[in-house]
Amino acid sequence: TFVLDKEKAEQAFAAKKVINGKDTMFFNILPLKYQWAYDLYKTMKNNHWEPEDIPMQKDVEQWRSDEISDVERWIIKMGIGYFSAAEGIVGDNILHVVREVVTAPELKLVLGRHAHEENIHADSLVYMLSSIGLNPHECEAMFEDVPTITAKNNFVVSNSRSMRRDIDLTQTKNKQDLAKNIFLFGQVMEGTQFYGLFGMILSLYRQNKFPGIGQMFRYTLRDESNHIEVFRNLLMDLIDENPDIWTPEFQEDLRATMAEGIRLEKEFIRDCLPVAGLGLNAPDFETYIDYIADRRLTSCGLAPLNEEGTTQNPFPWLAEMMDIKKEQNFFEGRVTEYQKASALGDVDDDDL
Amino acid sequence: TFVLDKEKAEQAFAAKKVINGKDTMFFNILPLKYQWAYDLYKTMKNNHWEPEDIPMQKDVEQWRSDEISDVERWIIKMGIGYFSAAEGIVGDNILHVVREVVTAPELKLVLGRHAHEENIHADSLVYMLSSIGLNPHECEAMFEDVPTITAKNNFVVSNSRSMRRDIDLTQTKNKQDLAKNIFLFGQVMEGTQFYGLFGMILSLYRQNKFPGIGQMFRYTLRDESNHIEVFRNLLMDLIDENPDIWTPEFQEDLRATMAEGIRLEKEFIRDCLPVAGLGLNAPDFETYIDYIADRRLTSCGLAPLNEEGTTQNPFPWLAEMMDIKKEQNFFEGRVTEYQKASALGDVDDDDL
Ligand SMILES: [Ca+2]
Ligand SMILES: [Ca+2]
Repeated sequence: TFVLDKEKAEQAFAAKKVINGKDTMFFNILPLKYQWAYDLYKTMKNNHWEPEDIPMQKDVEQWRSDEISDVERWIIKMGIGYFSAAEGIVGDNILHVVREVVTAPELKLVLGRHAHEENIHADSLVYMLSSIGLNPHECEAMFEDVPTITAKNNFVVSNSRSMRRDIDLTQTKNKQDLAKNIFLFGQVMEGTQFYGLFGMILSLYRQNKFPGIGQMFRYTLRDESNHIEVFRNLLMDLIDENPDIWTPEFQEDLRATMAEGIRLEKEFIRDCLPVAGLGLNAPDFETYIDYIADRRLTSCGLAPLNEEGTTQNPFPWLAEMMDIKKEQNFFEGRVTEYQKASALGDVDDDDL
Repeated sequence: TFVLDKEKAEQAFAAKKVINGKDTMFFNILPLKYQWAYDLYKTMKNNHWEPEDIPMQKDVEQWRSDEISDVERWIIKMGIGYFSAAEGIVGDNILHVVREVVTAPELKLVLGRHAHEENIHADSLVYMLSSIGLNPHECEAMFEDVPTITAKNNFVVSNSRSMRRDIDLTQTKNKQDLAKNIFLFGQVMEGTQFYGLFGMILSLYRQNKFPGIGQMFRYTLRDESNHIEVFRNLLMDLIDENPDIWTPEFQEDLRATMAEGIRLEKEFIRDCLPVAGLGLNAPDFETYIDYIADRRLTSCGLAPLNEEGTTQNPFPWLAEMMDIKKEQNFFEGRVTEYQKASALGDVDDDDL
């Protein structure tokens, strides 16, 4: 038998922090300090899905038919191509910036699940692409050839790359850089810039176009709502433990970052929807982005960019898209049923 | 419409490499260059399991009863405690050493799934611990109080930590350091050092002791067989693309690393099993470790440490433990059924 040093273990618990905590490389998440992280981990794994569960036959038929317009085809290609890149950028940033410096095991746990879902999304895009027979070269080349996409990507990639270094997180300036990275990725990119294409693809889905692709994007959207929450909670706890971060200047910097993200997203939307038609028009999507962005800001304790009450949601139906419970029979007859009813039912408009 | 530069995309494909390839941060895994990585990714996700699927009532009853010996209790505590740490160390190394420098997206994909399974294992250990009501402090303190465990952990952690830095992978010495890390983690740690405790816990399971814990370790063992394969393939392709790594001196260095890993594992086994009894005795486990280690070495093209034919498997039943197909009715009546039959059936003794 061995003598156990409980006091030492209790000190280790007390030293659990978002950053600058005890970094043991050991993965004992108990006793939990960040309950939200474990709760979100559980919610996320209850939402587990795999692309092969979704039939693609109808999508393939529609893609080959002439009932689909060029703009619609372009949106699908753009959706697949953009998210292939974007989810990879998000995953790299989680793993090589945020998880790298976070010290509490339960935070590493939920960040690991977050990164894993980026893997699943990337895999689902491969499944869409190969099902409808797109040329992967074509999708990849899009990023280098469409200026409004490269602008969006550079905006986040340059921030993420600049953070991939040894960083002294005892200095306020460096802590602010990390907090900004977490805000940029969680609230501006996943939280706002993803919603233009989500809206477009799910608007097609609503018109019964590309039901398999639309279904996968519904699952993806539900996952994103958790990703946004992971990064929001992480930011809030980081600030809570390090109040020196939260200066008025820094808060303004975050608002300006969101404003720049919105500007880039609106340019991208105008590129995607040069002409109005079929329920898809650029002004509605721009309004939607303003609406979403202000919700993200206020959820982090920041002032919205527009006066309260002046932004409205032009797509109330989009909130319902996440409520996958209603389509239980989707899985009918399938062996694989990842979705557990208990995890649902608490999705409402606030999750958008 | 946009003009797409296919030639540029094809060049990007040609530049796909294990290391020093085109690093775009984009996650377009098509067209695949490392088919094994995507195939293993699919096998791994078809093996998906979550701890809550496994009932723990019988384990709780046994834990509270007096039919269980002190040695058996100690093995369970040690198993939970050791793997809580070990899987975290493996996960950190995948994410902050290997995935950091690997450049091909499909390799990042499978490494992401590998890291995710370490998350699931960590979560399963929390589930075991809280089900039977162990004090997490007690488990954590074990690592600092049991010298044969700290020796095992330091052996891998010091290597992993020394690799967490900017590293010039155009130099042979640095490429060898990476190759050694991949060998150390895949073949020595996950491939050999994990098998002492696996054997002990599954030996108890075979005697109908702790069926829930045993079942989770069966799933874990099956996952490990894929982790070993991921790292073995990665090592083989790294060497294939960088033959300057594979000098006779370097090969001897890897064999010596395995020999040291075996020495530490045998010391640990003698600590776990100070007296023989109930089908668990140290000499059998030491023989088993020699047997497993030589299989790992030869699978990587290295000479075994013992003359061929001199090591034998004292636990042939352990191979059968991974063949979970036989117990399909385990899931009977459950909503969640992750296991797909198609992924099984190709497990044999070679996977151990
Ligand atoms: Ca995401
Ligand atoms: Ca493992």
